[in-house]
Amino acid sequence: MLLAKSTWPEIEAYLQRSKTVVVPIGSNEQHGPTGLLGTDWMCPEIIAHEAQKQHDDLLVAPTFNIGMAQHHLEFAGTIFLRPTTFIAAIGDWCRSLGAHGFERIYFLNGHGGNVATIEAAFSELYAEASFAGRRRGFACKLKNWWDLAGVDALARQQFPVGHGSHATPSEIAVTQWAYPDAIKTANYAPQIAPTGPVREALDFRARYADGRMGSDPGLATPEKGGELVALAVQGLVADVAAFAAEPTP
Amino acid sequence: MLLAKSTWPEIEAYLQRSKTVVVPIGSNEQHGPTGLLGTDWMCPEIIAHEAQKQHDDLLVAPTFNIGMAQHHLEFAGTIFLRPTTFIAAIGDWCRSLGAHGFERIYFLNGHGGNVATIEAAFSELYAEASFAGRRRGFACKLKNWWDLAGVDALARQQFPVGHGSHATPSEIAVTQWAYPDAIKTANYAPQIAPTGPVREALDFRARYADGRMGSDPGLATPEKGGELVALAVQGLVADVAAFAAEPTP
Amino acid sequence: MLLAKSTWPEIEAYLQRSKTVVVPIGSNEQHGPTGLLGTDWMCPEIIAHEAQKQHDDLLVAPTFNIGMAQHHLEFAGTIFLRPTTFIAAIGDWCRSLGAHGFERIYFLNGHGGNVATIEAAFSELYAEASFAGRRRGFACKLKNWWDLAGVDALARQQFPVGHGSHATPSEIAVTQWAYPDAIKTANYAPQIAPTGPVREALDFRARYADGRMGSDPGLATPEKGGELVALAVQGLVADVAAFAAEPTP
Amino acid sequence: MLLAKSTWPEIEAYLQRSKTVVVPIGSNEQHGPTGLLGTDWMCPEIIAHEAQKQHDDLLVAPTFNIGMAQHHLEFAGTIFLRPTTFIAAIGDWCRSLGAHGFERIYFLNGHGGNVATIEAAFSELYAEASFAGRRRGFACKLKNWWDLAGVDALARQQFPVGHGSHATPSEIAVTQWAYPDAIKTANYAPQIAPTGPVREALDFRARYADGRMGSDPGLATPEKGGELVALAVQGLVADVAAFAAEPTP
Amino acid sequence: MLLAKSTWPEIEAYLQRSKTVVVPIGSNEQHGPTGLLGTDWMCPEIIAHEAQKQHDDLLVAPTFNIGMAQHHLEFAGTIFLRPTTFIAAIGDWCRSLGAHGFERIYFLNGHGGNVATIEAAFSELYAEASFAGRRRGFACKLKNWWDLAGVDALARQQFPVGHGSHATPSEIAVTQWAYPDAIKTANYAPQIAPTGPVREALDFRARYADGRMGSDPGLATPEKGGELVALAVQGLVADVAAFAAEPTP
Amino acid sequence: MLLAKSTWPEIEAYLQRSKTVVVPIGSNEQHGPTGLLGTDWMCPEIIAHEAQKQHDDLLVAPTFNIGMAQHHLEFAGTIFLRPTTFIAAIGDWCRSLGAHGFERIYFLNGHGGNVATIEAAFSELYAEASFAGRRRGFACKLKNWWDLAGVDALARQQFPVGHGSHATPSEIAVTQWAYPDAIKTANYAPQIAPTGPVREALDFRARYADGRMGSDPGLATPEKGGELVALAVQGLVADVAAFAAEPTP
Repeated sequence: MLLAKSTWPEIEAYLQRSKTVVVPIGSNEQHGPTGLLGTDWMCPEIIAHEAQKQHDDLLVAPTFNIGMAQHHLEFAGTIFLRPTTFIAAIGDWCRSLGAHGFERIYFLNGHGGNVATIEAAFSELYAEASFAGRRRGFACKLKNWWDLAGVDALARQQFPVGHGSHATPSEIAVTQWAYPDAIKTANYAPQIAPTGPVREALDFRARYADGRMGSDPGLATPEKGGELVALAVQGLVADVAAFAAEPTP
Repeated sequence: MLLAKSTWPEIEAYLQRSKTVVVPIGSNEQHGPTGLLGTDWMCPEIIAHEAQKQHDDLLVAPTFNIGMAQHHLEFAGTIFLRPTTFIAAIGDWCRSLGAHGFERIYFLNGHGGNVATIEAAFSELYAEASFAGRRRGFACKLKNWWDLAGVDALARQQFPVGHGSHATPSEIAVTQWAYPDAIKTANYAPQIAPTGPVREALDFRARYADGRMGSDPGLATPEKGGELVALAVQGLVADVAAFAAEPTP
Repeated sequence: MLLAKSTWPEIEAYLQRSKTVVVPIGSNEQHGPTGLLGTDWMCPEIIAHEAQKQHDDLLVAPTFNIGMAQHHLEFAGTIFLRPTTFIAAIGDWCRSLGAHGFERIYFLNGHGGNVATIEAAFSELYAEASFAGRRRGFACKLKNWWDLAGVDALARQQFPVGHGSHATPSEIAVTQWAYPDAIKTANYAPQIAPTGPVREALDFRARYADGRMGSDPGLATPEKGGELVALAVQGLVADVAAFAAEPTP
Repeated sequence: MLLAKSTWPEIEAYLQRSKTVVVPIGSNEQHGPTGLLGTDWMCPEIIAHEAQKQHDDLLVAPTFNIGMAQHHLEFAGTIFLRPTTFIAAIGDWCRSLGAHGFERIYFLNGHGGNVATIEAAFSELYAEASFAGRRRGFACKLKNWWDLAGVDALARQQFPVGHGSHATPSEIAVTQWAYPDAIKTANYAPQIAPTGPVREALDFRARYADGRMGSDPGLATPEKGGELVALAVQGLVADVAAFAAEPTP
Repeated sequence: MLLAKSTWPEIEAYLQRSKTVVVPIGSNEQHGPTGLLGTDWMCPEIIAHEAQKQHDDLLVAPTFNIGMAQHHLEFAGTIFLRPTTFIAAIGDWCRSLGAHGFERIYFLNGHGGNVATIEAAFSELYAEASFAGRRRGFACKLKNWWDLAGVDALARQQFPVGHGSHATPSEIAVTQWAYPDAIKTANYAPQIAPTGPVREALDFRARYADGRMGSDPGLATPEKGGELVALAVQGLVADVAAFAAEPTP
Repeated sequence: MLLAKSTWPEIEAYLQRSKTVVVPIGSNEQHGPTGLLGTDWMCPEIIAHEAQKQHDDLLVAPTFNIGMAQHHLEFAGTIFLRPTTFIAAIGDWCRSLGAHGFERIYFLNGHGGNVATIEAAFSELYAEASFAGRRRGFACKLKNWWDLAGVDALARQQFPVGHGSHATPSEIAVTQWAYPDAIKTANYAPQIAPTGPVREALDFRARYADGRMGSDPGLATPEKGGELVALAVQGLVADVAAFAAEPTP
C-alpha cells in the first residue's frame, strides 16, 4: 500500500490495523561513470514498492530522495542536504507521522553516507521527548537495504571482486532490473576504483577521479539486480514485521 | 531528460548546452475523501515528466515531494516541513544545483500552501549573496502548474462550478489521467465544500470536515486530466524557455 | 489607542473588551531618488495611527520597522532581516501578544517584499501548534495598506501612468502628507523606471539604476497622500472589525 | 539627520563625510502602574532625535523597539524577542549597515535587560569575521542612555530615594517631557517597590506585583525629564564623536 | 562532592538533601606569553574542587571548559564557541540538570568574555518558560570567581599595579598554585600591557601584540595564588549557601 | 603535551613541527550502580593524557566532556547536548583549531552514543567547504578508544562474559585504574543486565532498571584497567601517527 496513492480515510483505516510505516530514504548523487544519480533513493524505493505489491499491509511512504552527500558535490547532478538540514527534515517527517498515530517509523536506507545523520536525527527527536520528560510516542529504525537478511552475502557472492563501497555493482544492478531502459555503459579505468577516506568534495574528487570507490560497476546485470530485490523484499517484510511486533516497555 | 536517471557525465555534458533545470515541488497531504495524498507532488511531476519526454533538452530534477502543509495535519497521511525547515532544504537543493553551474532553477509547484515559503527561501538564498556583496550565480523561479498559460482558464471551463481551492477536480483529474488504477470514489456532503481561511490544523479540521475547500472533486475525469496535462506541458516548455533566455544584467 | 503609550493596566482593561491588535509592519529601504528610506514602515504607521485617533478602540502596537529587503542592499541606508530572522522575530512578537490573550493579530503591511515571509512566519506559528496537536490561540492576518477597500483603485485613478511597483507616487504621497517637511526632489531619468524581476542586490542595482521600479514618484503630492490615507483609514477600520468578528470554529 | 527621513542619495553623501550611525534600541514592556509600555525605546529615541536636531551630522537610524524582556511577559502589552532571535536581528541590522560602509555602529540603549544579549550579538558578529580570518569592517558600541556623562548622577540627585531599577522616575520623566499628553497616574503601594532577582515571567510577577522594581515612579515630572534629556544629548554627542574618532589599529 | 566521580544513585541521594549544583565555567584561550591556555577554566575548577574537598555537601559538576573567546583566535591554541552555540550548550546543560530536580544552578565563571553570553543563555532558558506560561523549575546564577567576597580586593592589594584585565597576575597565580610544574616564564615588553576595546580577532591581535591586556603577569607567585584560592573558597561556599537558601516566590 | 597547560607561543612553536591534535571526547552520563558519571569522558582523557606523558609530541586538547546521552536523562547526574547543539559545538572547536593551522583533528571518543552525531558534525564542517567550492583545510577523524588496535580483543579476553555495551567492566576498570579512590560497589541484579534498543529516556529507564546494558561491571579491577590503558596508549600513538602521515591528495 502506497501512502501517496491513498486517501486520508484509507490511511485512517490502516491505522486501525497497523501503526507501522516504511520510508524509503536515500540520496541523489553521482554514482560513477555508469550509475544513475538517483541510484541511492531508487534502490530502497524499488525494494519497498515491490514489497508492498506482494504484502498489502505494508504501508510505504513517499521516498525521501535527497540525503547527506556533501562529498559528491564536485560531480554534476549531486544534490544534498547538510546534516542540520537533514536532521530538521527527518524530524518534521517523523513528527508528522507520529501525529497520526504511527508508532513505528522504519527507514529503508540506500546511502551509507546517510547513516550517521539519520541516527543523529532520531536522537534529536528522542531528546525532545527526554527533555520534556515524556514518551516520544513512536520508535524509529534505520536499516540499509544491503543489511537486510542475506542481501550482502548474496552481493558478495555475485561480485566476489570489485564490489567496493560506492557505485557498487549490486546497487547498479538493482536499478538496471527496475529501469532496464536506463542502463548506461562507459569506459573507465582502473577496472576497480581506489578506496580511501571521505572528506570535503574537492578532496573526494581528487581521490576518486570518476566517482567510484573500490567498485567495478560494469559487473552489474539486471538479472543479478532482480535476485537482490527478491531477497531484499523477503528481508524487508520480515524485518518490518519484527519491528512492528516489538513490545514497548 | 530526467536528472535522476542520468549519470554525472551526462549532466556535465548537458550543462555545456543549457544551464536550466526544472524541479517539480509539491506536498504530501490529504486531498479530501477521494484525492490521493500525493496529489500535489504528483501533478507537477506528471507534467514535468511528460514535458521532458517530448522535449529532450528539458532537464527535470527529482521531485521535492514534501512541502508546507501544517494545516492538514489532523488528516491522516499528511507529512509536512515547517517553513524554516522547508527554507533550509530548498536552500540546500539550490546551493547544490548552483554549485554545478545551473543558472536557472525553475520550481514547478503543485501546492498553493508552498508559495510563500518557497518565495521566502529564494529571498534567503539571495540575501546570502547580498550580504556578501556578490552575485548569487543563479536565479530561481516559482510557477504553479495551474498558472501555466491557459491552464487555469481550461480548468474553469471544465469545472465552472465546484472547482474550489483544495482537492480540486482539476488536480484530481491530473492524477486520474496518470494513475487510472488509483481512482477513488466516496460519498461526501455537501456537494461543494465550504471555503474560509487557513490556520492551524485543529482549526482547519473544524472548518473543513472532510478536508475539501470549496471543491466538488467528483467532477474529475481522467480525460479532463489529460487535457490539462497537455496544455500544461506546452505552457511549461514555453515558460522554461523564456526563463532560460532571460538576460542577466 | 497606542499600545506603546499605554500602561499595562490599560492594556489589561482593553483586553476585557477586545482581543484584537493592529501591528504596522514595513521595511526601511531605498525608495528611489526622492522617496524616504522609511516609506514602507511609515505608510502603515501613518494610516494606523490616524485610524486609532478616530476610533478609540483600535489598538495599535509599535511599528515593526525592518523587513525583508535584501534586494535593496546596494543602495545606502537599506536595513533588512533575512527571511529566517524575520520569521523568528514575527514569531516572538506574536507569541508575546498571544500570551496576553490577543486572539486576532492584524499586520498592516507597507512592503510587498515582506508578504511571502510574513505568511511563512504565520505558518511557522501555526505549525508549532499543529505539531503539538493544540489550538494556536490566536489568528494572524496580513493586509497590505494598498489592498484596503478602494485604495488601489484610488491610486490608479490618481496616477494612471507611472505608478509602478516600487517608490510609487502613492506611497510617497502618503509620506508627503504626513511629513511635509521631508519632501524631497531630484532629477531622474527615465521618467518612468523600468520593470523586471527581483533577485539579489547586485542584480537589482544593475537593473534599476536609481532604485525605482516602474514608477514616476514625482507625481506624488501631499494632497493625494491625504486622500489615500483617508480612504485607507476607513478600509482599515472596517477590515479589522470584520477580522475581530470572525468566529472561531 | 534621521536615516528614515532621508533618501538613499542623501545617505550615500553622508557616508562621504562620516561612517558613524546611532541606533536607538530599547524594549516594549510593562513599566509599572503609570509607566508607558514604550518607555524603554522612547527614551533613547527621544534623546537621539533631540541630539540630531541640534547636531546635523549625527545620523540616527530607525529605532529598534523590541528587546529582551521575557521576564515582563505576565504583564499585558509586553512584547519581546528571545536572545537568539534578538542576536539574529541585531546581526542583520549591523550586516546591513556595514554593507553600506558604516564603520561605527553606536547603539543607544534604553533597557538594562538588553545589555547582555546586545553584547553577545556583537560577539556573534565579530566571531563571524574571526572564524573567517578577516576584518569585520565595523565596530559596535553599546551605551545605556543613563550611562552618558553625568546623567546617572543627575538622576540620583533628582531622585535621592525611590529611583530603583525598573519603572524608574528618571525614565518616566523623560517620556513625560516628550509626551506630556500621555502622563498617567495611579495609586500604588508600597510607595517604593521591592527589589530582587530577575527570572522567568511567573517568578517576576510573583515578586513584583505591579511591575515596578525598587522605584517610586510618582516622583517623575516633565521638567526633570527635560533636564535629563538635555544632559544626555550633550553626553551622546560627545560619546559618539569619541567613538567616531577612535583609530582602527 | 564531584558529580563526575559519583554514581547516579549517589546523585539521586544528594538530591534528597540539596537541589544545588556548582558548574565551573571558563574558556580555553591565550593568556599572554606566560599564561596557560586553560587558565580561565582552570581557575574556577581549582576553586570549586578545593571547596568541595572542604565542604562535602557542595556538588560540583564537570567543568564547562570552552567559552566565548572569539577575540583571541589569532593566538594559537584558543578554542571558542560562538555566542549562539554557547547559548545552546549552556541551555542543554541546564535542561539536563533541571530534569533531575536541581533548582539552583550556580555557574562559577573564570572568563569576563563569557558574562554577556551566559546571561543571555539564562534569559533564553527563562524565555522558554515565559512563552509557555509556566515555571522554569530552576534558577541560574553567574558569579565570576574574582567577584566572590573579598577576592578582588585581595588581588588589588597583591598587585597594586599591573593587574590589568587579561592574563592578570591573579589568575595566573591561581594556576601556579595548583599546577606548580606548569609555571612558565618569558620576556615581554612593555612591562604593563596596553588596554583598549575588544573586537574581532585581527583587531585584537593588532592592539595587543602578545595577548595581554593591561597586565604584568610576571608578578604572579604560587603563594599569592594560594591566598586567592583560600579566600575564594570561603566566598564560594557562602555565596552558594545563600543562593540555595533563597526562597522561591 | 597538554594544550591547556601550554602557552600560545608554545602551541605556535608546536605547529612548526606538527599539525595534529588529539581531542578526548566523551559524555557525562549514568554508568549503572557502580560506574562514575564521568566514565565516558574520563576514559579517553586518561588514555590521551597517559600517551602524551610518554610521547612528548602528542598534543592533547582539553576534554570535550559532554556528549549525546539523551537516553540516560532519567538517571540523575546525566548531562547531554542535543545532536544539533553537539554539531554546533564540535564545529566551533574544529573551526577554532583549523584557524590555527591544525590539519588533522583526531577525536578519541569514549561514548558509543556520540558516534553518529560526531560523524554528522564532521560532514557539516566538510559541507560548509563543499558548498563554498573550497578546501576545508583540515581532516577530522573519530576513533573509539576500544577500537584502538588490540583493545577490544583484550577486553573480550578479560571479560569473556558480562562485558555488555554500557557500564562495561572494561571502561569501569579504566577509571578504577586512574581513580582508585573513587571505586564504588553496589549490589545489583541480575548479574548481567538486559540488552535491547535505545530510544527516549523514559523508554530506556523502563528497559534498563539500573542503567546497565548487557554488562556485569563488578568484574572490573584496576589492574585490568591498567592493562587496557597501556594497550590503548600504544594503539593511540600509532593511529595518530598514521593519521598525521596521511597524504592530502
